[in-house]
Formats: sequence, structure tokens, C-alpha cells
Amino acid sequence: MSRAKAEAPERSITAGSDFLHLTIADAPRGGRADWLAGRLRQAIVDGRVPVGDRLPATRVLAADLGVSRGVVTEAYQRLTEEGHLAGRGRAGTVVVAAPGTPTPPVPAPAAAPNPAGLFTPAPDSDIFEAVRAASATIDLAPGVPDLTAFPRADWLRAERTVLRHLAAADFGYGDPCGAPVLRQAVAAWLARNRGITVDPVEVIVVAGVTQALGLLAQALGAAGINRIAVEDPGSLGVRQHLNNWRMDTPPIGVDDAGLRVDELAASGVPAVMLTPAHQFPTGVVLDGDRRRQLVAWARAGGLIIEDDYDAEHRYDRPPVPALRGLLPEQVCYAGSVSKLLAPALRVGWLLVPSRLREAVVVAKRNADLGNAVLPQLVLAELMTSGAFERHLRLLRRRHIRRRDAMIAALARHLPDATVHGAAAGLHLMITLDDAVVDTELAAATLARGVKVQPLSWHCQRPYRPGLVLGYAARTTTEIEEGVIEIAAALRDRRRLDG
Amino acid sequence: MSRAKAEAPERSITAGSDFLHLTIADAPRGGRADWLAGRLRQAIVDGRVPVGDRLPATRVLAADLGVSRGVVTEAYQRLTEEGHLAGRGRAGTVVVAAPGTPTPPVPAPAAAPNPAGLFTPAPDSDIFEAVRAASATIDLAPGVPDLTAFPRADWLRAERTVLRHLAAADFGYGDPCGAPVLRQAVAAWLARNRGITVDPVEVIVVAGVTQALGLLAQALGAAGINRIAVEDPGSLGVRQHLNNWRMDTPPIGVDDAGLRVDELAASGVPAVMLTPAHQFPTGVVLDGDRRRQLVAWARAGGLIIEDDYDAEHRYDRPPVPALRGLLPEQVCYAGSVSKLLAPALRVGWLLVPSRLREAVVVAKRNADLGNAVLPQLVLAELMTSGAFERHLRLLRRRHIRRRDAMIAALARHLPDATVHGAAAGLHLMITLDDAVVDTELAAATLARGVKVQPLSWHCQRPYRPGLVLGYAARTTTEIEEGVIEIAAALRDRRRLDG
Repeated sequence: MSRAKAEAPERSITAGSDFLHLTIADAPRGGRADWLAGRLRQAIVDGRVPVGDRLPATRVLAADLGVSRGVVTEAYQRLTEEGHLAGRGRAGTVVVAAPGTPTPPVPAPAAAPNPAGLFTPAPDSDIFEAVRAASATIDLAPGVPDLTAFPRADWLRAERTVLRHLAAADFGYGDPCGAPVLRQAVAAWLARNRGITVDPVEVIVVAGVTQALGLLAQALGAAGINRIAVEDPGSLGVRQHLNNWRMDTPPIGVDDAGLRVDELAASGVPAVMLTPAHQFPTGVVLDGDRRRQLVAWARAGGLIIEDDYDAEHRYDRPPVPALRGLLPEQVCYAGSVSKLLAPALRVGWLLVPSRLREAVVVAKRNADLGNAVLPQLVLAELMTSGAFERHLRLLRRRHIRRRDAMIAALARHLPDATVHGAAAGLHLMITLDDAVVDTELAAATLARGVKVQPLSWHCQRPYRPGLVLGYAARTTTEIEEGVIEIAAALRDRRRLDG
Repeated sequence: MSRAKAEAPERSITAGSDFLHLTIADAPRGGRADWLAGRLRQAIVDGRVPVGDRLPATRVLAADLGVSRGVVTEAYQRLTEEGHLAGRGRAGTVVVAAPGTPTPPVPAPAAAPNPAGLFTPAPDSDIFEAVRAASATIDLAPGVPDLTAFPRADWLRAERTVLRHLAAADFGYGDPCGAPVLRQAVAAWLARNRGITVDPVEVIVVAGVTQALGLLAQALGAAGINRIAVEDPGSLGVRQHLNNWRMDTPPIGVDDAGLRVDELAASGVPAVMLTPAHQFPTGVVLDGDRRRQLVAWARAGGLIIEDDYDAEHRYDRPPVPALRGLLPEQVCYAGSVSKLLAPALRVGWLLVPSRLREAVVVAKRNADLGNAVLPQLVLAELMTSGAFERHLRLLRRRHIRRRDAMIAALARHLPDATVHGAAAGLHLMITLDDAVVDTELAAATLARGVKVQPLSWHCQRPYRPGLVLGYAARTTTEIEEGVIEIAAALRDRRRLDG
């Protein structure tokens, strides 16, 4: 504490180095190089400065410590002679393995999970991470687009444009609902492609549909709603996620026309979460009659949560407009770029009825103060420049080929399987004869190096056994090879059972 | 649904356009150009395709609809003649304002908040957004580094490197705890600069310290802890945030030696959140005695949450190692790049005792499935290439000049103010004579175009009136001009009171 009227302090010194917290006051006069060499040696030996790390430049460290550069040079020289350090020209002075230096600890590889153990009938909420961590030759798990197609050059170009024009203040804390320019781009996208008219200020940018559901669960919980009906079959991940946010998820059946709205109405549950454009996992589209029934249910007070996750991936059927376009005050709408660009971007959007808006914004603020700004601006640039739409056209052409390859491979190698939901999306569902235990089949398939998901994971009530097979991220060759292994695993299981 | 043994379907068609959900089946035979022109006109008039938007290329739209390109060309031509569209060469066909087109709605500007109304004694949790939205000539609110210094070129270069080398699978869903390469870089950073030895797998990448506190609050709440003591004076934002996550935040005094550990021990509260390296807002460093007392309190079972928010910004005092380095099983440690690079990046890190780890990871998964991957990899590249450290050295030099300018300006224009916490950080605290009502002073200062924070916002119990003044993000000229306005506002208030 100092009185302001005191004169400004003398020229500031930093009085020590952040690097290893070295303070010259600790050094004996006349023995500074010795002292410094000792401190560095200790830090190298105990791993604080591991092999491969670069030391500060002598000039910089000398200035930090307030000593002559010769002191630092001498200390570095001594450790170089001992074999702890090596000069690397412009790359500076680097720590190298020395005789007597214990080998740096090698990070333990993630334990290879037991494939059979993964596919239990009631998996935990870390199941998808565990499946991703399992090693496999061919990954036919559903849920990702062709990631090799990620438009790296377009992304980098858009980022350059954004960085060139960004105001410094935009690097500060922003609006928790997202960057205005992305909200504008999303609103324009939804108007053009999903039949939704929305004021950009109503768009809430979120970290994917997962976060959107968490925010909604918090807002609905605060409003006294603790049950959200879900489709059955329906996404295991969504159900686990809602359960984690303390929502019950009673199952509502799905048939060839989509969600059984009669079951929903009979259940008395106040809210329902569904995937009307391409039901997960069955691939059914909510048909016209059911849409009308659902709209009537919502007009009578029901709340719809519309996960529009696959709407843009349709191949041989007409587009289906979003329910949100019909009923803005009864539909919460969530979408993301996870299936359009990459899940790793963690960007999505959420529209909610006005009565829920304040609570959702509070929840988003409490979650993270808003999404990171740069990726939002880059995405907006891609959406407005047309690069995003070009990318989707490329994806669609590629996905159709892969979808066709999977259907052909199934016809050839698994002729008894029934194929569902091929007209859109990134995956197929197949159902198999009732004797098959699909978790066992998935485990046996993984043992053959191919990852698939058992259909029963996505079913709360008894359903036909089957598999959910992603094709979008795999080459046609991989797809055929994967299907061959599924067929082989199925034959093996039948032989065991027979 | 189709039997797999059926042959693969004929060549897929997309059967309609996502753009406006146009389906040619809706068009009368022989009147397709008419029909298309009508649909486009309607979409332009009702704002679904606003002025400035580009229409799909004729070739693309024709292919989507399964019509000859001439049909689309004719429809575009007609709307061009009507004045709705204009050809822009390589930029395509663009919507322009036409006679009879209603002017597109101009987004309403954020309501300019009433400056006097902002500075209430007990502000809501959206207060910081409201203050940011208030217009001002000079912003001396604390909490951001010099954002004009953001290393745009380094960032773009690192992003190029990352995009060049990234495996396609890395665009998929990742580990909710973060990208391994960033966790490695953060662990190395903490070892070199903060005296913390940690296995990279223990590092949890989060969306800033705000998210870290939310995750901790959830984990502690599940463990039956619903009170976290906080410093008083202490950050209003932190307190509001913990309250929002259903934590009580009893106040513990701060004096010239830092947190009053005796008060903490007497309170019986099981956990405490503090800023030991540079207390917010007073700028005090927790001294040696208090550190020893706090360590004893933690060894007896207390849990420490260490917000290391300003540790790297120190000017004329030696570095202070983190408490976490001493007591890994009693300290939760949170840091971020918000004060080192930019808050807009929303990247931070969290270390927790092993007994809390599982619950925190579950909370992170439920929050957002993990941070976005690309910015993590870019940051790791900056940290390992040395660009990050270079940036901090540049920031430090600049911040020292600005700090000195603010101290000099205060001595000149507000000689009666007492200045606190100048040896480190991005802000100063000043205290004023007890007759001043600092919320009123902040309002009067904003009315003169200068944003500051009243100290009383950051106090739960009566304390001296004062202001919290950020200097890091402003030029020395702005700083002096800002202080002159504060002094003028203070004189005005005294005149009113006198």
C-alpha cells in the first residue's frame, strides 16, 4: 500500500524469474553461477524441466534475475558439459537425457478396455468415451460425418479474415448468448434451410446439442418440470445426459410413422424430446399425420424439444421443415455443426420459447460465460461466404456413395438383416432375428476389429435386436470389410449357440 | 424400411432443395419457372432471404430440383427485372432492395442502460454484461489484459501448423478432460512457472475459471458441501457465480497479510476460495505466516480452491509459488488464459484432489463433452513454441508502463486516494475517505464517459469506499484522461454533498 501522492516508483524490476521461481536473493554472493547451475540441475533431475524443453535465453534469464549474462552462460555451460543441456543454435538451449538422469516417465497408455466388457446391457455415462478408446481397425460407430472432408483450407482462410478485421475489444468477455455475427448467420441459415423465421437476438450459441439439453434441463427443472419423454428406440447418450441433469426420461414408442403421439398424450408427461427429421436410431421421418397430432398436443400445452441433428443429411427424400417453424412458443430447437463440420468444434445453437429464455441465458452464463469467440466468427464467415454450403454438398455426394456401399454390402453379406432409415442421415439401423443378443454380437464384432453399436443400447423397452452402423466417416472399402466382419461374428455366435 | 437383399437403390436423387424447402413436385407442369419465381419472391418479401443474401447458383438449384437449368435462369431473370435480384458476376445472384419490398428489420440496438441504474449496491448476476454494454469513452473496468497485443500472427501461424498435422479423427468427439497435447503443455507450464508438479492426465481443460468453479461447486455439492468461504473484499463475480451454483459464500476478512486464516478457522466452513498470488481486489499477497497457517488449516481437513488468476502478472516483487504445489490433495487449482491472452478464448485448466476427480470429470462431460479441440491445439502449439512466453514478456513491459502511468495520474489528480496492490496484476484498488459513496461515484464517472467499478461491489461487509481501476487494456493517455474524469466526478459529488 502506498499513498498516491508519493512519487511514482523507481524503474520497475521484476525481482526474480517466473521460470522455476528463481530469486537471486537466495544465491550466495560470488557463487551465483554455482547456485544457478544447482537449481537448474535439480529441476532437470526432478522432472520440472523435462527432456526436450528449452531453457530461457541467457539474456532473458539474466535480466529477470538481475545478474550479468555471464552468470547464466556459465551455469548453462556447466550443465552442457555434464550432458544435461545441449545448444541447438536458433532453437536455444535444450534439456537432453544425461547419464544419471532418470528416464522421464512415459505417459501410461489408456488401459485397453476389454471389448466384451464394453457392451453391457446398461452402460455407464462414460461408455462412448470407452468405446472411442477401444482400438479397432474399422470404426462403424454412428454419429460423425466424414471428418477427412473437414474444410481445413477454408477454415484457415476464414480465420485469417476474422483475425485481420477483429476489434481488440472482441478478444474480451462477450455476450453469453454468442457473437452477434454468428447469431445473424445462424438465423439466416435456419430461414433458408429449415423453414424457421427467428430474430438473431433469439439465437443462443451453445457448445453443441449436449450443452443445449443441459441448459434446457436446468431451466425446466427450475420451472418444476422433471420429466422429459424420449423416443424409444432413442439415443442412449441423450437419455443418459438428461438423467444426469436430474430429468426422468419415460419412453414413448416409435413406429414407421415416427413418435407415437397417442402414447405421449396418454403418458401425461409435460415435455418430449424428439428427432423428427431423421429419428435416431431408426431413421424414420415423423409423417404428416403424426406432425399434426404432435402440433395439437403442443398447442394444448405440451413442450417439444426438437433435436434437428441430421436434417441437412438427406439423400432421396424431400426436405422436412422443422417443427419450430410452426410453433415457436411451444418448441425448443437445437442444432449444431457436429454432423455438418466436426464435433470437435463444439458449436451449436438453441432457440427457446420466450418464457424460458431468461432461465436458459442464466444457465449458459453459469456454464461458461459463453462460447469462445474466434471459432464463432470463423464459422459465421464460412456460413456467409458460401463455403459451408459447398462443404455440405461435397459431404452429401460422398455420404450417398458410402450409404449405397453399405446397403450393397449388407445385401451381399448379411442378406437376412432388415435395413432401416437409409433415406437420410449418417448411419443405418439393421434389425436381426430375435435369437441374436446384439450386445454380444457387438462385442464379437469388436473382437474382430470392427466397432459397431448394439441397438439395444438405444432401447428402454424390449425391441428387436440389431446394430446401428455409421457409414459417413468410412471409405467404401472399409464399409464392405466391416460388414464382412459383422457377418462373420454373427456366424460365429450362431455356431456357438447352435 | 427395405430388405437388404433387395438390390441397392437406383442412383440417389436429393428430391428437392434444402434452400427454402423447394420441391418440384409442388410445381405445375409447364409452369415451373413461374412457380419458382413466385416461391423466391415470397421468401424475399417475407424476409427469409434478406437483402444481401446470395441465391444458390442456377446449376446447383436446377440439379437439386431436378429441372433444366433454363427454368432457374428464367425465374432469376424475372426477379431481376422486378428489381428483387441483381447479378454480381463471380459473387453470384444477390437479393437487393426492391420497390415494394418492406425494409428489412434493423436489429434493435441493445438498450443503452441508465448509468445511474447500473451501480446499485446489490447488482444482479448480469451486471458485468450490462456494464460492458454501457457506452463509455474510456473503459477502466478491471479484468482484461492488453487485448490489442493479442498475438494474431502467431495464433494464425500456429493454427496453420495444427491444421496441417491434425488427424481426421481429432475432428471427432474428444476426451472431456481436454486434448492430451494441451494437458501436457499446461503441466509443463505449471512445473516451470508455478512450482506445481502434476501428471498431464490430471489436468482438466475447462472453459475458463468460471466453468472450473461451476464444476467444483457441482462436485462439492454432491459430496455434501454447500458452503465455500470467500475473501472479503473479494470478487463479486466469483461470489455471484458460486451462489448461482447453490453455494453459500460466507465472507472472511482480508488484511495486509492476506486472508485472515484465524477467521476462516473460527467459521467452521469446510472450504475456502482465494486468490493468494494477487488478492482480488486488494492486490495483497498472502504472506509467509498466513501461508503456513492456511496449510495447517488444510492439513487438518480444509479444502482450498486456489484461483491463480494473476500470478504471471507481477512487476516488482518476487514470484509466489502456488499453494497447489505444496498440498496437491487439499488444493483445487484453477487458472486460465483469460488474463494471459484473451478472455474470448474461454480456455483454462483445473487440478483437483484425486477424491474429487471423478465427480468433476462427470460434471465437465455433462457441461459440454469437453472444450473445442482446435483452440486447445493452437494454444498448446503457442505454449511449446515459446510464442506464449514471448507474448507475456511483451505484455509485462507494456503493463508496467501503464501501471506507472496510473499511479502517476492518481498522485497528480487524486492525491488523497490511497493506492493498493500495485506490485502485480492488471488493476489497482484505491480507497477514498469514508464520506464517499462509491456506487454513486462510479455512476457519476460513467456519466462523464469513464467506466470504473465501485469497491463496495466486491465487499460483503462494510469496508472503505473505493474504486477498482483496470489499467492493462488502456493507453497511458487514456489512463490519465480517465483519472482526470474520476477526480472531476469526485469533486462534483463533494460539491453536491457540501
